[in-house]
Amino acid sequence: MPSSLSPTILSELQAIVGAKGLITAANQLQTYECDGLTAFRTPPRAVLLPESTEQVQAILRLCHRERIPFVGRGAGTGLSGGALPSEDCIVIGMSRMNRILNIDIPNQQITVQPGVINAAVTAAVSPYGYFYAPDPSSQTVCSIGGNIAENAGGAHCLKYGFTVTHILEMTVVLPNGDLVTLGGKTIDTPGYDLAGVFIGSEGTLGIATEATLRIMRKPETVQVILAAFDTISAAAQSVSEVIASGQLPAAMEIMDRLSIEAAEMSVHPNYPSCEALLLIELDGPEAEVNLQMTSVVEICRTNGAWETRLAVDEESRFLVWKGRKAAFAAAGRLSPNYIVQDGVIPRTSLPAVLEKLNAMAAEAHLRVTNVFHAGDGNLHPIVLYDRDHPGEEEKAIQLSLRILDVCVEAGGSITGEHGVGREKQCSMSYMFSDPDLETMQRVRRAFDPLNLANPDKIFPTPRLCGERSRGAYAPHPIEASGIAEVF
Amino acid sequence: MPSSLSPTILSELQAIVGAKGLITAANQLQTYECDGLTAFRTPPRAVLLPESTEQVQAILRLCHRERIPFVGRGAGTGLSGGALPSEDCIVIGMSRMNRILNIDIPNQQITVQPGVINAAVTAAVSPYGYFYAPDPSSQTVCSIGGNIAENAGGAHCLKYGFTVTHILEMTVVLPNGDLVTLGGKTIDTPGYDLAGVFIGSEGTLGIATEATLRIMRKPETVQVILAAFDTISAAAQSVSEVIASGQLPAAMEIMDRLSIEAAEMSVHPNYPSCEALLLIELDGPEAEVNLQMTSVVEICRTNGAWETRLAVDEESRFLVWKGRKAAFAAAGRLSPNYIVQDGVIPRTSLPAVLEKLNAMAAEAHLRVTNVFHAGDGNLHPIVLYDRDHPGEEEKAIQLSLRILDVCVEAGGSITGEHGVGREKQCSMSYMFSDPDLETMQRVRRAFDPLNLANPDKIFPTPRLCGERSRGAYAPHPIEASGIAEVF
Repeated sequence: MPSSLSPTILSELQAIVGAKGLITAANQLQTYECDGLTAFRTPPRAVLLPESTEQVQAILRLCHRERIPFVGRGAGTGLSGGALPSEDCIVIGMSRMNRILNIDIPNQQITVQPGVINAAVTAAVSPYGYFYAPDPSSQTVCSIGGNIAENAGGAHCLKYGFTVTHILEMTVVLPNGDLVTLGGKTIDTPGYDLAGVFIGSEGTLGIATEATLRIMRKPETVQVILAAFDTISAAAQSVSEVIASGQLPAAMEIMDRLSIEAAEMSVHPNYPSCEALLLIELDGPEAEVNLQMTSVVEICRTNGAWETRLAVDEESRFLVWKGRKAAFAAAGRLSPNYIVQDGVIPRTSLPAVLEKLNAMAAEAHLRVTNVFHAGDGNLHPIVLYDRDHPGEEEKAIQLSLRILDVCVEAGGSITGEHGVGREKQCSMSYMFSDPDLETMQRVRRAFDPLNLANPDKIFPTPRLCGERSRGAYAPHPIEASGIAEVF
Repeated sequence: MPSSLSPTILSELQAIVGAKGLITAANQLQTYECDGLTAFRTPPRAVLLPESTEQVQAILRLCHRERIPFVGRGAGTGLSGGALPSEDCIVIGMSRMNRILNIDIPNQQITVQPGVINAAVTAAVSPYGYFYAPDPSSQTVCSIGGNIAENAGGAHCLKYGFTVTHILEMTVVLPNGDLVTLGGKTIDTPGYDLAGVFIGSEGTLGIATEATLRIMRKPETVQVILAAFDTISAAAQSVSEVIASGQLPAAMEIMDRLSIEAAEMSVHPNYPSCEALLLIELDGPEAEVNLQMTSVVEICRTNGAWETRLAVDEESRFLVWKGRKAAFAAAGRLSPNYIVQDGVIPRTSLPAVLEKLNAMAAEAHLRVTNVFHAGDGNLHPIVLYDRDHPGEEEKAIQLSLRILDVCVEAGGSITGEHGVGREKQCSMSYMFSDPDLETMQRVRRAFDPLNLANPDKIFPTPRLCGERSRGAYAPHPIEASGIAEVF
């Protein structure tokens, strides 16, 4: 159990957030012991639920004065343990700060509090013909604050970019309680781009209490095609050829047989039964979409797609996406336990990396199913295991981490959109050199010299990682791609 | 004159870069006394022209040891004095590091040294059907390193985004000589987005010695329309309506009568003679472009365009852009001296801001001509004056800075793409609060604790700015835009 806060501090905290905003009962604290990465759990000393920027400032000033570490928490859906409480910390939950503050259609902006649910943003601007582009699979439950912390992605980030592309300005409370404005409501704000560094910093630089988001005009037409292939490689080749043809679909996703079956069992999207399902969404003016779709279908057919199925009306598109977005949760139909991994590779190395993954899974006697944001090379291998088989959980964790090494060796990265959090700290030194990590740490200390904001996350530590904390690896593998070679 | 470097240090520097890489003769140093902002001049102690990352590291290690400030310099075309030498500094010119290192077409990337000229990137990938999107007007002479330092924009950044959107990975030498890799060749690199904070940091965080850039497939079709209006407001209204219709042209530019006349005198683009010329470029698949062009022409006509002229073939498009891109230099045809200003406003406030600018110009008895990146609200007012008229230069500088205040008051910003540099330091505290600026300074110190990298830039100082250095203003003007109001 964590050490209790003194009665004086508890009463100070209660004076800030009111009785309803302070949670200290052990049974209520259990909810906050972990986020979506449930394998790691730590109880916090208390949970605070502020309702305003001023309350967040007051809490952080008190934490600063008393040297109490704090962990910000959005909806708790993160998959890398970013909202996992640190030892002896308090958790600051943003769920009560869930108001939409302003909608400015002519300038295509909306200002919200961080507790607003991702899908609620689109719902708010949809009547005016707009939408908010970043769409993590958890979008019906995850919050904008959490999206900012993790620089959340989603299937449609291929065309529209990650959260960082869509946040214009933020009001941020620094770990010492100071209030700053990062970014700006117009293009290319002068000075350093601190909005960029804050977005994706996983709660280690402060707490955002307001954000102005860019909204986009809904496309005139949206069409989704499902193409069935006999091999993942053939589907991946189609993705490369679509991109090479100069088209940028809104989304390009690949699911393998196991994940298709899981989705089918779970939400019945009526997918074709095949080894690899490629899902391509095109949006834009109708004439353009029709034209592009013809070309996309031709590319798929040329690469061996034996069925292509078009979904044009909203209902059938919804069903297609329901299957894809349920893929993680549906893994529960295949196996009592599973780990969703999140690696990135250069799009062109997908077939080679997959072959390696399959060999590694076979060697470990574990099943791995794969869902990809194929357009941008973001893999989500799902390692299936049974906790009740002795040693299998540990084997699954090890396999899942080795998959990341393979991604780095292919010139890729250890996370596309889920963040580093607690889960991948030890992989950081496989990807970055010592000076790379030390530079990040110096920036961290610039914001948070006392190391109070979500400490013990992102960076490797000797305690957790041993040798791996020392960044003793090459910063990046050497790429052998001269012009001659890459064609 | 700056203090001379000791013979020992000079010989150390020469040992690093060779005799050809070290400039110390006073007449040769003159070239490096200023950049495109010629009103400010300071001679450096020496100029170094390294040829490799290792040489840059060796120079910065020596600067670190000896506490010598340094200023990185690209092609010297910057307009805000970013490459102006600081007192007693050495200048590190990147012109000899001008090699293209790798072209990777399947992954749509090119790796270059920082001295490569912007237009040379497109030239290198053009045979494969690709282009590099950021296109500052100076693109035939400015370098990628300078583009990174200033987060350079250009007319086509409306659709394609600024330099920051197109830089994937950089090799950077920190002010202590350490080598780091910022960003990554795949999406959303884990840890802090230090590539984002480095891009646009105006040489104050270190020197980039390699950069991997994103290249894009050339569009199938490009068309430009010129539309002639009787008022700037009518042209601006057309821009707003095009955006509101859900279309995103590659570029939308407005030129006023004076700048049209100047371009005509200078490069004879054969523009229609009018009060406001709106130039809209559409690109994409031909069917889409044709469709969009019909809608764009209709919007312009509805808003009072009395002539619309389409340029489809490459030659006529080239001529249209030649006129627009020559606009700054062409101001020399209107007046012996001029200042190009660079402010940003919310697109919707363009008519109100223009009215204010005109009143201010009239009051100062100065002529101001305007060129806009209208799609993203980026104004380039050009203040015309004659240095030989006593007091007129000072009046012009004051007017040009007051224009920035008006931009900030409208909810905008003091620079869209030219940077803060030396020119706009004192405007920073009108735009940012004390904690905002202090947070940036802390990040600066995280990279450069000894304040050696391009010191005395970006941030307001008491010596230069007096009261204005204190950030005693509101961080942002309050916006009165509720939902009800903005429609």
